[in-house]
Amino acid sequence: MTFGFEVHASDGRARSGTFTTPHGAVATPAFMAVGTLATVKALDPDDLQAMGAQMILANAYHLHLRPGDELIRDLGGLHEFMAWPRPILTDSGGFQVFSLATLRTVDEDGVEFRSHLDGSRRRFTPESVMRIERNLGADVIMQFDHVIPGQSDAASARDASERSLRWLARCTTELRHLSERDGDDRRQTLFPIVQGGIHAELRQEAARAIASSGDWHGYGIGGLSVGEEKADMYRILEVVDAELPHERPRYLMGVGFPEDLVEGVARGIDLFDCVAPTRMGRNGAVFTADGRLNIKRAEFRADTRPLDDGCDCSACRRFTRAYVRHLFTSDEILGHRLLSLHNVHFLVRLMRTARDAIASGAFGAWSRDWLARYHSRPTPTE
Amino acid sequence: MTFGFEVHASDGRARSGTFTTPHGAVATPAFMAVGTLATVKALDPDDLQAMGAQMILANAYHLHLRPGDELIRDLGGLHEFMAWPRPILTDSGGFQVFSLATLRTVDEDGVEFRSHLDGSRRRFTPESVMRIERNLGADVIMQFDHVIPGQSDAASARDASERSLRWLARCTTELRHLSERDGDDRRQTLFPIVQGGIHAELRQEAARAIASSGDWHGYGIGGLSVGEEKADMYRILEVVDAELPHERPRYLMGVGFPEDLVEGVARGIDLFDCVAPTRMGRNGAVFTADGRLNIKRAEFRADTRPLDDGCDCSACRRFTRAYVRHLFTSDEILGHRLLSLHNVHFLVRLMRTARDAIASGAFGAWSRDWLARYHSRPTPTE
Repeated sequence: MTFGFEVHASDGRARSGTFTTPHGAVATPAFMAVGTLATVKALDPDDLQAMGAQMILANAYHLHLRPGDELIRDLGGLHEFMAWPRPILTDSGGFQVFSLATLRTVDEDGVEFRSHLDGSRRRFTPESVMRIERNLGADVIMQFDHVIPGQSDAASARDASERSLRWLARCTTELRHLSERDGDDRRQTLFPIVQGGIHAELRQEAARAIASSGDWHGYGIGGLSVGEEKADMYRILEVVDAELPHERPRYLMGVGFPEDLVEGVARGIDLFDCVAPTRMGRNGAVFTADGRLNIKRAEFRADTRPLDDGCDCSACRRFTRAYVRHLFTSDEILGHRLLSLHNVHFLVRLMRTARDAIASGAFGAWSRDWLARYHSRPTPTE
Repeated sequence: MTFGFEVHASDGRARSGTFTTPHGAVATPAFMAVGTLATVKALDPDDLQAMGAQMILANAYHLHLRPGDELIRDLGGLHEFMAWPRPILTDSGGFQVFSLATLRTVDEDGVEFRSHLDGSRRRFTPESVMRIERNLGADVIMQFDHVIPGQSDAASARDASERSLRWLARCTTELRHLSERDGDDRRQTLFPIVQGGIHAELRQEAARAIASSGDWHGYGIGGLSVGEEKADMYRILEVVDAELPHERPRYLMGVGFPEDLVEGVARGIDLFDCVAPTRMGRNGAVFTADGRLNIKRAEFRADTRPLDDGCDCSACRRFTRAYVRHLFTSDEILGHRLLSLHNVHFLVRLMRTARDAIASGAFGAWSRDWLARYHSRPTPTE
């Protein structure tokens, strides 16, 4: 089988496993770095391979606009285009259409919007997005869904969630057509997305409807970490965990602060992605075991310690906080690279440690200690 | 002896040799990448080591202003600060004081100017610059000189050149004091700078005066590639070549277009530096064996060739022109990195090839062929 998932160990709701794809296996739980435009910002694919990153994400909306999904198809697909031989997942653009694009109108058929780049008029439907994601050629492709603001009322959330379910069926049909056309149905797998805002009942209904509509190789959980309270997110994760089949991986979309990864793993999540490590890194934020710090602060001017004591990333092995601060003060590109590298490495390593803790049955104690230490220092103002 | 130079082979005026420093040997002729602010822009020290870069340059003016040469001294010196274990040369800031700083007034004692960063009032003298370069701790430190515009008349050029000679004597005295203070006279060597604009007689006088004033471990040639005709630069190089001792390396300052390196080697130059490969790379310019191209042009949209056929740099081994063009079109940092890497690698490899050609007595034919091919394509407008 081309796609598969095997759970090797579990500890409470946390589990460690292996997710298999046509481009290799992913040890879970795992963090996926985000390469929106077919590049993880400020990093080189070699950096990601060296730190043990297993799977990365790219974005259908952005790549459709620039350089164009048909060009990427003609150049051999995303893996070849960006020289990343390991697994890739593409987001469908649902989130971007509803957050970046302007002047959008939604109807049952799809969404009309204007590109955030040049204002050009575009239309996404479940079918067109499947064709885009087929052209890009990622291993895992996400369904096109109707994304709504995190604090939406139950009626709007239900409307969007039910539309997303109908769109899932259309995505499935279109992907089958494309597979038949290409004589190849094992190359890509479609993940559905559970929506429903912070409304437990809607999440439950959506998860049940999706799970009963097919034997998916994995499940996306969307619409979280979009402004709601952390407690709400954790509560919803528990609701969804109870409804989704345990023998399939669950991917919590767009979530990637260190503490959220640990809390997510504790609630049965297997895959994460987020721009936080790179976006915040370019702004000077450093993830450390003792919480976050801002390297631009004057206190680090002559600090000869590495960014994070005990970190074995290529930045921490070579450079001092004083040097990295100098790079930021001088607006040097190497600063962006080193903090992006360190922060992504931090999350990749965090998930490796979590896997080991699960395997040895020590996840509960480890995660309690880890969270206590991480929260011990107040988050700096930036 | 800590510093030394041995010529292994020569072919016409071109020669190949080894320049020895406390941080290792440099096979010459060699190109030095410029790390103005203790980082070669958009590159990682690991990139430079991997491509075989032997020696790099940093800048006393910039590092004095930010983060401060005393801080770098306190942190262990430049090599440790920027994690570069190989040889480093620091420019004295003469060029920057006369090009970047504002409101400068020159007198015999030194130069008063305002920082280009914050307008603060500063004063450089030969003595203060030696203290700055001592704090930075590079292997080779350049004298503080009086730099004038390339097209200056003979009277101004003579005035500046003679002042630079007097300042050289003061640099020597100050460096001796610093060495005595530290009980260490082998750590750094001072290179004088031959000035004199495009006036052959002045260049001749300056070179003779410098050569007779001490047994320097190497000689800088300044004030070229600053707007004069290429023919003038080549003519001056020939004048200076005839005057300087052949058993010492000559460093042609700030010159680094590929064709200038080949022409310089043919006229007895051993060391070069220039921001061109990184600055032009960040702007989309690609050095190739067939001349320069601009990766942003639409013609490269679907071009699956590497940046330069036959190049073995880490960018050319992995990525297509189409991908690098996409990175530039999308303003992605990886694009800056890949072209900076390719262009510096291009010059490092060019000098390696030149050394081999000299060693085998084939430099004349090789350089003729190389220049003919490089000039075969017109330079693109950018």
